[in-house]
Amino acid sequence: MDPKVALDTVWVLVTGMLVFFMNLGFATVEAGMQPAKNCVNILSKNFVVFAVTSLVFWMFGFGLMFGDGSPWLGLQGIWGLHGLDNSPATGDAYQGVYSALNWTGVPLFAKFFFQLVFAGTAATIVSGAVGSRIKYLSFIVFSCIMGTLIYPVTGHWIWGGGFLAKMGFWDFAGSSVVHSVGGWAALTGALILGPRIGKFGPNGEVRATPGHELSLATLGTFVLWLGWFGFNPGSTMAADPEAISRICVTTNSGGIAAALTATITSWLLLGKPDLGMTLNGLLAGLVAITAGCAYVSVESSLIIGAIAGVLVVLAVMFFEQKLKIDDPVGATSVHLVNGVWGTLAVGLFSQDVYMPNTTGNGLLFGGGAKLLMAQLTGVAAVAIFTLVVSAVAWWLLKATMGIRVSAQEEIEGLDIGEHGNSAYPDFVVRKTFPVTSGAMSASAEPARR
Amino acid sequence: MDPKVALDTVWVLVTGMLVFFMNLGFATVEAGMQPAKNCVNILSKNFVVFAVTSLVFWMFGFGLMFGDGSPWLGLQGIWGLHGLDNSPATGDAYQGVYSALNWTGVPLFAKFFFQLVFAGTAATIVSGAVGSRIKYLSFIVFSCIMGTLIYPVTGHWIWGGGFLAKMGFWDFAGSSVVHSVGGWAALTGALILGPRIGKFGPNGEVRATPGHELSLATLGTFVLWLGWFGFNPGSTMAADPEAISRICVTTNSGGIAAALTATITSWLLLGKPDLGMTLNGLLAGLVAITAGCAYVSVESSLIIGAIAGVLVVLAVMFFEQKLKIDDPVGATSVHLVNGVWGTLAVGLFSQDVYMPNTTGNGLLFGGGAKLLMAQLTGVAAVAIFTLVVSAVAWWLLKATMGIRVSAQEEIEGLDIGEHGNSAYPDFVVRKTFPVTSGAMSASAEPARR
Amino acid sequence: MDPKVALDTVWVLVTGMLVFFMNLGFATVEAGMQPAKNCVNILSKNFVVFAVTSLVFWMFGFGLMFGDGSPWLGLQGIWGLHGLDNSPATGDAYQGVYSALNWTGVPLFAKFFFQLVFAGTAATIVSGAVGSRIKYLSFIVFSCIMGTLIYPVTGHWIWGGGFLAKMGFWDFAGSSVVHSVGGWAALTGALILGPRIGKFGPNGEVRATPGHELSLATLGTFVLWLGWFGFNPGSTMAADPEAISRICVTTNSGGIAAALTATITSWLLLGKPDLGMTLNGLLAGLVAITAGCAYVSVESSLIIGAIAGVLVVLAVMFFEQKLKIDDPVGATSVHLVNGVWGTLAVGLFSQDVYMPNTTGNGLLFGGGAKLLMAQLTGVAAVAIFTLVVSAVAWWLLKATMGIRVSAQEEIEGLDIGEHGNSAYPDFVVRKTFPVTSGAMSASAEPARR
Repeated sequence: MDPKVALDTVWVLVTGMLVFFMNLGFATVEAGMQPAKNCVNILSKNFVVFAVTSLVFWMFGFGLMFGDGSPWLGLQGIWGLHGLDNSPATGDAYQGVYSALNWTGVPLFAKFFFQLVFAGTAATIVSGAVGSRIKYLSFIVFSCIMGTLIYPVTGHWIWGGGFLAKMGFWDFAGSSVVHSVGGWAALTGALILGPRIGKFGPNGEVRATPGHELSLATLGTFVLWLGWFGFNPGSTMAADPEAISRICVTTNSGGIAAALTATITSWLLLGKPDLGMTLNGLLAGLVAITAGCAYVSVESSLIIGAIAGVLVVLAVMFFEQKLKIDDPVGATSVHLVNGVWGTLAVGLFSQDVYMPNTTGNGLLFGGGAKLLMAQLTGVAAVAIFTLVVSAVAWWLLKATMGIRVSAQEEIEGLDIGEHGNSAYPDFVVRKTFPVTSGAMSASAEPARR
Repeated sequence: MDPKVALDTVWVLVTGMLVFFMNLGFATVEAGMQPAKNCVNILSKNFVVFAVTSLVFWMFGFGLMFGDGSPWLGLQGIWGLHGLDNSPATGDAYQGVYSALNWTGVPLFAKFFFQLVFAGTAATIVSGAVGSRIKYLSFIVFSCIMGTLIYPVTGHWIWGGGFLAKMGFWDFAGSSVVHSVGGWAALTGALILGPRIGKFGPNGEVRATPGHELSLATLGTFVLWLGWFGFNPGSTMAADPEAISRICVTTNSGGIAAALTATITSWLLLGKPDLGMTLNGLLAGLVAITAGCAYVSVESSLIIGAIAGVLVVLAVMFFEQKLKIDDPVGATSVHLVNGVWGTLAVGLFSQDVYMPNTTGNGLLFGGGAKLLMAQLTGVAAVAIFTLVVSAVAWWLLKATMGIRVSAQEEIEGLDIGEHGNSAYPDFVVRKTFPVTSGAMSASAEPARR
Repeated sequence: MDPKVALDTVWVLVTGMLVFFMNLGFATVEAGMQPAKNCVNILSKNFVVFAVTSLVFWMFGFGLMFGDGSPWLGLQGIWGLHGLDNSPATGDAYQGVYSALNWTGVPLFAKFFFQLVFAGTAATIVSGAVGSRIKYLSFIVFSCIMGTLIYPVTGHWIWGGGFLAKMGFWDFAGSSVVHSVGGWAALTGALILGPRIGKFGPNGEVRATPGHELSLATLGTFVLWLGWFGFNPGSTMAADPEAISRICVTTNSGGIAAALTATITSWLLLGKPDLGMTLNGLLAGLVAITAGCAYVSVESSLIIGAIAGVLVVLAVMFFEQKLKIDDPVGATSVHLVNGVWGTLAVGLFSQDVYMPNTTGNGLLFGGGAKLLMAQLTGVAAVAIFTLVVSAVAWWLLKATMGIRVSAQEEIEGLDIGEHGNSAYPDFVVRKTFPVTSGAMSASAEPARR
């Protein structure tokens, strides 16, 4: 057995496991940042979304994304990985229907496992933005659509040998493929669902909607941080020592720069260092460095992150105060805004020296605007497709099975309505937001079960 | 140094660490699914059980399980790994007293570390089923017996070169060795302890006993899911790229199929999708695929998991409503029922092509009933031994030091009685179950400290 | 590409990720062991400290610690890793300014990543001891000083080829470099800050200050335990199969022996098995075995751990009852006392056979007192430097920006004062400690937001 194949496989699987673990991160960040009365619902969504994605991505998604066929969509090897494939053979020695992945010398099941955990991430991004008001079943159906169609199609364009890949668009670990796709679908969902009852007052004033457990949200952010050390360095899909070491450092640098600038920005704008902004800042920086982590210097990663940290704070305020879009966890500000920023940053900060013969130099390193233009094109193409298809999907769901729980259920909490359950039956839980009448009252009422 | 030895060792240690991490999963699942007033006790048990197992498995367990000697029990190299051993030499080159592990080319301490974390898992399974009423010290003593005797003996039969191994019984990663052994011991404990006060009403009606923190239970299930990517693929004890990649995928498929069918089954039977059932469904599927993960196709793993998800919901209801057995977290339904199902499934779904010259084909793939009969024999042998020895152990403990806390302590909560502590002193905690008198009241009373 | 370099890099990065994950462990242990009203502040500190350390250790710390130059301090390659370096070349083939790390054959960025996560750990140790009363910004500034100066200087002495290394002082994975340095800085901080209001009564009596969520603290301890499997075995910085396997086992043995003896000691002294003591016992054992994990037998690791478990319980009582030092989480008892103990234990228990030509034999294995004397000298040197520099730093901060929040803010909770936030807005939280007037009352008052 080739020792390189064995080591690369171990690397791909272990980093894939870390990416899988991000599901725990998303579940706890989203639960912690929303009210206790919707906690069971949020956890259920985040748990089942990976199960559903695992099924549909195995059935259809992987083949549509990586199968040979057309610039728009994979057409071969679609059902259950049953296409011809002689992995771990690579390059010219590769014979099979998933040629877009013939650069990595690991078995097909390792490729599938790693791509599956990425697909699961994209679907999970949506759940936060539509939280605290979406019907459980409608969310599950939408997740099927994400994993079967939306994610694989745009993914095919970029990572599956499709038209954006051919055009010279680069997204190393998925600022666009994963995060902005998830972000656009999340934005569409939040828009079509509308804000939670009481989020905006009669005169359009924004009401604070605190999460119920910041220790849970912080825990989840640490888990996501860990997971990103799988997400980015693992995307080499090979244990290339120089590359994976450097990517670990650029990834961390992008994240921490953003955590620091988001903390400072919130301190300046809000008067106090807001923990939620620090956490979302870290995530924003990680999202932003994802596209370029392999192509940029540590210094550049710090700059990309620093900008991401400011962007996310401004975006949260802009979406909420100006656009009146209710995204309970800031998923669009983190994943969409910074997914786009990170994708464009590749066009600015890339240096040919890091991955010779891939990106070339970006605008700031003497490479001209060519790369930046390709990145812009890719951002636009992904935006248009994902917006349109997501919107159609949400509208179809709305017209058929409905997507929003009743007002009474929303006020009472989705846990009782959707699941007949309560996350914290032994604790005295206050129904903080939204309340039935008047302003946000703080009256202590025992939880009903 | 042989690079294969180094890589295999890294794989065994890293996957072993993931299995170790399952201790956090068990602790939080069990704590989250039981009342807040017993939380310190549950956490303490789950923490100390691994410490105790580490000690006794090093002193005796490993040698009794893997030492050469007899078909029933290891007889050599019992104390502190001090037998002759020239690992990482393998096969005919191996010279030592742990020949049952001579197929894996890693140092003895790597073998020990990996087997130790498995032993810890078996002991932990018991703690959930006997929760909320067992004496702390009695549980610790029982754990010593598990790690010293019960787990190593049946383990020797199957993985230590004992009589079941020789008979052609196969259990790749421990549906029987770990889960059904833990499950039988758990069942015996739950039976001999009897149900919690108030669990069954005067007319035998079953009372709901909600856990106190479903976010903790969900977190724990995600951690266990991650841990299983160590448990099953790591059981190759070698970085065989094809095998470990495939096992990652069959493991995940078994789990998610069960999570989905358990969700649907609970939705149909209970009217709502119950999160606890979704979580236990995932675990049931993972338990069921554990024995066969290396021997079956992805399609078969989905079927094995799908059946496990239905089984676990029916088992929970059956144990509770028909047999009136009180198992607060459903450990027997998850680990025992599906440990047995997974072991038998090897006899049905195995295909020789995946691990040539091991299982051969199962009943559904043209191999006849031979394998299934061997699996049935193994299930029966493990059941009889574990039931008898566990029962004797529990009865001896009951007759000497006692195994159950006083009724007053049980009602007040074990945290105060056993540990003089409270898990949540800053929160207003309601004593939900069992209550001193009358039906389940929801009166808010401040926690005493 | 050299396959050994690739495998060693994977090992260093994966174990580094586990050490990074210890940040989650510290955050949750510290949060869980302190009141709910300070939870946002504690989480914020533990989150931002790693961000700050990442920045300053990249800018200055790594070069000061590992750069060539003098026995006291690195003088070359200080800014942003921009020194000459031809890693992964090793030994005589190495050309560069970080020669102290030329024994490990991995890329420079892998060395940096691994050392960075260690630096982050040292800074985090401080946060627990100064918790519940320190100003957020002052803690951040002190963390900068830790990561820029204190940690790198003593680290240079020991791991950077400085005077202690040359003298024959050995600290394999950092009982001194990380834990006692963090511990001395923590002790100084706790002393200069003074105890929390109400911790000691008018007659000097000690008041109990329970943490607010023991499930969180237990979770964190499990995460730290996992992280230690990166910390110690990863410190080989090479996938040496024999060494990493053995270190996994000695690490675990040291930890569990201490968990057991701490549990027993607390049971005997306090009448009940205290969960907090069990958790701190495990950590104490892990700290103590860190220096010697590569040099001692499993039997010795059990003895070192067993002593650590007794030491930590006595130290907690001694610091609190005799010295009247208020360390809310016992950080000094865990990291300082046992960091020192573990460093000295190298002088007692080391055996030349495990790492030939490094430590030689310790006092108990016929090596005489030479090694023990070197260890004592190192302990004293680290103590004096860290105490003096930390004290100066804390005093400077106190004189300029102030280090302690106002009494009103401390009583009200730091979350509101420092962050304008609350960790648990949906729950009814009691302000347990300290209270405005009288003894610790248990009156339920709704949390203010």
